[in-house]
Amino acid sequence: EIVTALDSFVALNMACSPITPAQNISKNALLSGKRIMITAGPTREAIDPVRYISNHSSGKMGYAIAKAAVELGAKVTLVSGPVNILPPENVEVESVVSAQQMYDAVMSDIGSHDIFIACAAVADYRVDNASNHKMKKNKDDGLTLSFIQNPDILKSVAALDTAPFTVGFAAETQDMIEYAKSKLIRKKLNMIAANDVSKPGLGFNSDKNALIVITPEKEYELAQASKDSLAVNLLRLVEREYQETQK
Amino acid sequence: EIVTALDSFVALNMACSPITPAQNISKNALLSGKRIMITAGPTREAIDPVRYISNHSSGKMGYAIAKAAVELGAKVTLVSGPVNILPPENVEVESVVSAQQMYDAVMSDIGSHDIFIACAAVADYRVDNASNHKMKKNKDDGLTLSFIQNPDILKSVAALDTAPFTVGFAAETQDMIEYAKSKLIRKKLNMIAANDVSKPGLGFNSDKNALIVITPEKEYELAQASKDSLAVNLLRLVEREYQETQK
Repeated sequence: EIVTALDSFVALNMACSPITPAQNISKNALLSGKRIMITAGPTREAIDPVRYISNHSSGKMGYAIAKAAVELGAKVTLVSGPVNILPPENVEVESVVSAQQMYDAVMSDIGSHDIFIACAAVADYRVDNASNHKMKKNKDDGLTLSFIQNPDILKSVAALDTAPFTVGFAAETQDMIEYAKSKLIRKKLNMIAANDVSKPGLGFNSDKNALIVITPEKEYELAQASKDSLAVNLLRLVEREYQETQK
Repeated sequence: EIVTALDSFVALNMACSPITPAQNISKNALLSGKRIMITAGPTREAIDPVRYISNHSSGKMGYAIAKAAVELGAKVTLVSGPVNILPPENVEVESVVSAQQMYDAVMSDIGSHDIFIACAAVADYRVDNASNHKMKKNKDDGLTLSFIQNPDILKSVAALDTAPFTVGFAAETQDMIEYAKSKLIRKKLNMIAANDVSKPGLGFNSDKNALIVITPEKEYELAQASKDSLAVNLLRLVEREYQETQK
């Protein structure tokens, strides 16, 4: 489970470190001309008109990537679940609630994008028998809900004949790298960014994060940093690996 | 289902309408010396470390009542689920996440309060088999969760030997008044405020609301207004009915 290929990333990072993001915009618009679709935030799955299932995604990582991508010269589409943060400027935002809505929004527009970064925490399941009216408590003290799987947005995009360069995220609480590698291979992704959401102060709702970035051949470690800073470094890796696929 | 006793409320409302809330503070601190506990916001029930069940309560109504209660001279304790709004000034806030935590916070401190207003949308159920690690998708496309009932905070407070004047809320999507009356009687409340959360632009997440306020003997209609304005008028009714119980 030891992270490999750190050398190449350290080299990349050092070469870039004297350049501030602000200078990047004018000096080398790394992603100029690239169209990037990013998903962000949680999805919500209705149980009834009042109750829902969701998750702790704040949208901060995805929004930071969208902001950084614009700063690096990309044209950005942000498909966002319900969050409480403002979208960055110069980003086309499509707001959705449920996983099915996010799937529909992504699939109807992904064709015009070069790169897809799936940062949203999409509900794997939705309630099979969601009620149109607020459910009342039963007398017998119990309740059972049945769930069915939502469409897999990431896998569906990666499986397209004209798939963009596809980047997934894996938020895990255990066996992070193992799960992330398995997801990368199973869903035929170009890259996956794994983060450990069990660590206090990192990940969900935090302004900081740390990522292990995995491609079919390499692993990179992006050490703990602000989500804004991580976003820039992640996009540098994405751009580099994207260029590899274009050779 | 026709609302009765509107006459008395209209009279009350008209008598009060020339007085702004700001003037109320100095002129007649209606709730001076009263200790009021208010619950607000949703609760969240963990499915695993990443996923949870919650509801659409924004906390706005409860926070508006807390603000109005302070302005009317009360000493206010606000027990709040996770919300994205700032608490009003001069309110003692206790932040909780789950229904069990809200129950514990309320029950440990309710004894020192004269009035209890349960505005929170408390999860009736929690997951019986919540996981300590992020659950993975099954191969068979399905998932079943079992739920058990959470403790009933409102009923528990009303059942205390030294119960405060207890006000519940009923957020309904159908048969609103019937459900609210049933809840009032079943839980032995002094008052219940019912609102129809199926109406667009009212209730959850909105800045406006409309309430039907029911006591064992009377019904009042608080017509559509800002939550701040409704909060003041609701507290006037609470104070009036509270005084009745002290005779």
